[in-house]
Amino acid sequence: MKDEIILLAHGTGGKQSRMLIENLILKYLHDPALRFLPDSASIKVPRINDEICFTTDSFVVSPLFFPGGDIGKLAICGTVNDLAVCGAQALYMSCSLIIEEGLRFSELERILRSMATTAGKTGVRIVTGDTKVVEKGKCDGIFINTCGIGVRKSHVSLGLERIKPGDAIILSGVPGMHELAIICTRENIRFKSSLKSDCAPIKDLVFQVLSESVDVKFMRDPTRGGLATTLNEIASECKFGIRIYESKIPLVKSVKYLCEILGFDVMNLACEGRVVMIAKYDDAEKIVSTMRKHPLGRKANIIGVITERFPGKVILETVNGSERFIMMPSGRQLPRIC
Amino acid sequence: MKDEIILLAHGTGGKQSRMLIENLILKYLHDPALRFLPDSASIKVPRINDEICFTTDSFVVSPLFFPGGDIGKLAICGTVNDLAVCGAQALYMSCSLIIEEGLRFSELERILRSMATTAGKTGVRIVTGDTKVVEKGKCDGIFINTCGIGVRKSHVSLGLERIKPGDAIILSGVPGMHELAIICTRENIRFKSSLKSDCAPIKDLVFQVLSESVDVKFMRDPTRGGLATTLNEIASECKFGIRIYESKIPLVKSVKYLCEILGFDVMNLACEGRVVMIAKYDDAEKIVSTMRKHPLGRKANIIGVITERFPGKVILETVNGSERFIMMPSGRQLPRIC
Repeated sequence: MKDEIILLAHGTGGKQSRMLIENLILKYLHDPALRFLPDSASIKVPRINDEICFTTDSFVVSPLFFPGGDIGKLAICGTVNDLAVCGAQALYMSCSLIIEEGLRFSELERILRSMATTAGKTGVRIVTGDTKVVEKGKCDGIFINTCGIGVRKSHVSLGLERIKPGDAIILSGVPGMHELAIICTRENIRFKSSLKSDCAPIKDLVFQVLSESVDVKFMRDPTRGGLATTLNEIASECKFGIRIYESKIPLVKSVKYLCEILGFDVMNLACEGRVVMIAKYDDAEKIVSTMRKHPLGRKANIIGVITERFPGKVILETVNGSERFIMMPSGRQLPRIC
Repeated sequence: MKDEIILLAHGTGGKQSRMLIENLILKYLHDPALRFLPDSASIKVPRINDEICFTTDSFVVSPLFFPGGDIGKLAICGTVNDLAVCGAQALYMSCSLIIEEGLRFSELERILRSMATTAGKTGVRIVTGDTKVVEKGKCDGIFINTCGIGVRKSHVSLGLERIKPGDAIILSGVPGMHELAIICTRENIRFKSSLKSDCAPIKDLVFQVLSESVDVKFMRDPTRGGLATTLNEIASECKFGIRIYESKIPLVKSVKYLCEILGFDVMNLACEGRVVMIAKYDDAEKIVSTMRKHPLGRKANIIGVITERFPGKVILETVNGSERFIMMPSGRQLPRIC
């Protein structure tokens, strides 16, 4: 099937649809609950409390393959991470594919393999799915939607209303590597040092922190719109100010130089494997030290504090000691990064 | 905002994304659980048993608006129906939009209003969502993914393994109206009688039947691939034959004549508001009479039986008394119908 391409017939519900699903999709996604015939999957959810967490994300990244990942890995990580920052372990996931006529079977296979591998690593089960095919030029290779169902750890209490002045803001690693990896691939910018997307499931990192006796009050993964969007949303909702120290933001040379060359503000760049935590200041050092023991948290740092000054705003104290507002990004920075 | 169009900036996670979500999307989808900031929704699922039903569907119908419905109505009905045929009441739903740059705000508003109205009628709550924007020419107006979570009625026991020779096959109404309505709109075929899509939520019809003391063994909504696909899948999985009586298939003139003119086999045409039930033959008349009391079931009929003859095959006894196999549709009939 290596040289075959997807045809419209693969999406019309007949013989070819069935062949595509049975021979290719179920080859990689073969959870016992994911069978061909039923219209929905029956799943068992442990009753820690009455509540379950439910999230959805569509992935339209261009290009489909990039250093450090691909749309399949992204589609699993994105949804697992959305649940993780709510304190929930992803248990079940759906996988809905919109495929452009002409996509190579070999590319689809590579994406499915990547989904299966990433799902396997995170322990999430893909239990239901859907496949549509649209005409050439009506989609961009493939779009993937994943929905996730998870159960929140019983001891976790997260909420913006818990944030208080003096709380610490912790970032788990270097921001912006995902968006820069996408830009470099899309624009064919070659760079001596290998810059890879940070795309990764952050759940182990997050749950290792939550298993310590520390008071984490809120978490978010700074994806589209980067730190600037995440921090502005937090400030605007919790009605306090946020003060970020530029010197404390973990950076690597490739990110620093690429931002200088391309004129990007690292604050606006998307990550797909980082987490921002707001925590009680007294626990911040312990959290950072726990994070640094995890491969995804080696460069974790306290990057700022919640303040009473400038409620609803984000202030950056630059390396020169000056101050500037970090605004919510406006206009078009770079579309199709996730 | 009527004359405005969607820009790429509406999908980059910054100020415009927030405006689109707050000013337009949350205007129509305003469940208390659906808030801007959290990465997932917390939902309560009643403890009928440990099991919940989980399903996903992406909708890529072209055109977006058609007689009897639009992509928004379809996106709600499709997922509510997938749960209903599993005997489950849809409780929660996700809504994930992939929007093409250039879509008019007024069109998006019309779609969102339709989603809200249909969701309201079926009692399902839209609790989580996602919005992406892709460049002009990389999508076709809008694609919508919905995932649904439901709880199965406790007394319902459905399964292909329960099907036995002698069981009746019941169809709730005229097949093919959805696909024909799409064809006529797409190809600009004008027809004197008004042919509308059958797109509708079938859950009330289904649950009225299930509330009677009748033995329903399996249900499915014959969408893509129509009755031919649904019946062939059932026959092939349950290892019995299926005998359908052409004279018993409910038809209306417009469907009959359009099929003759366009050369379509009504068995292959998709429905979006019909259900096929396999039930104990003794209960079939009672089921049909219950269905006929419901507006969506007025033309319900017993259209066939499960047989020992030709295991795995579907036989049609034509109005002339001859017999022919109904095959699984092959090749491209009509793409993008849902």
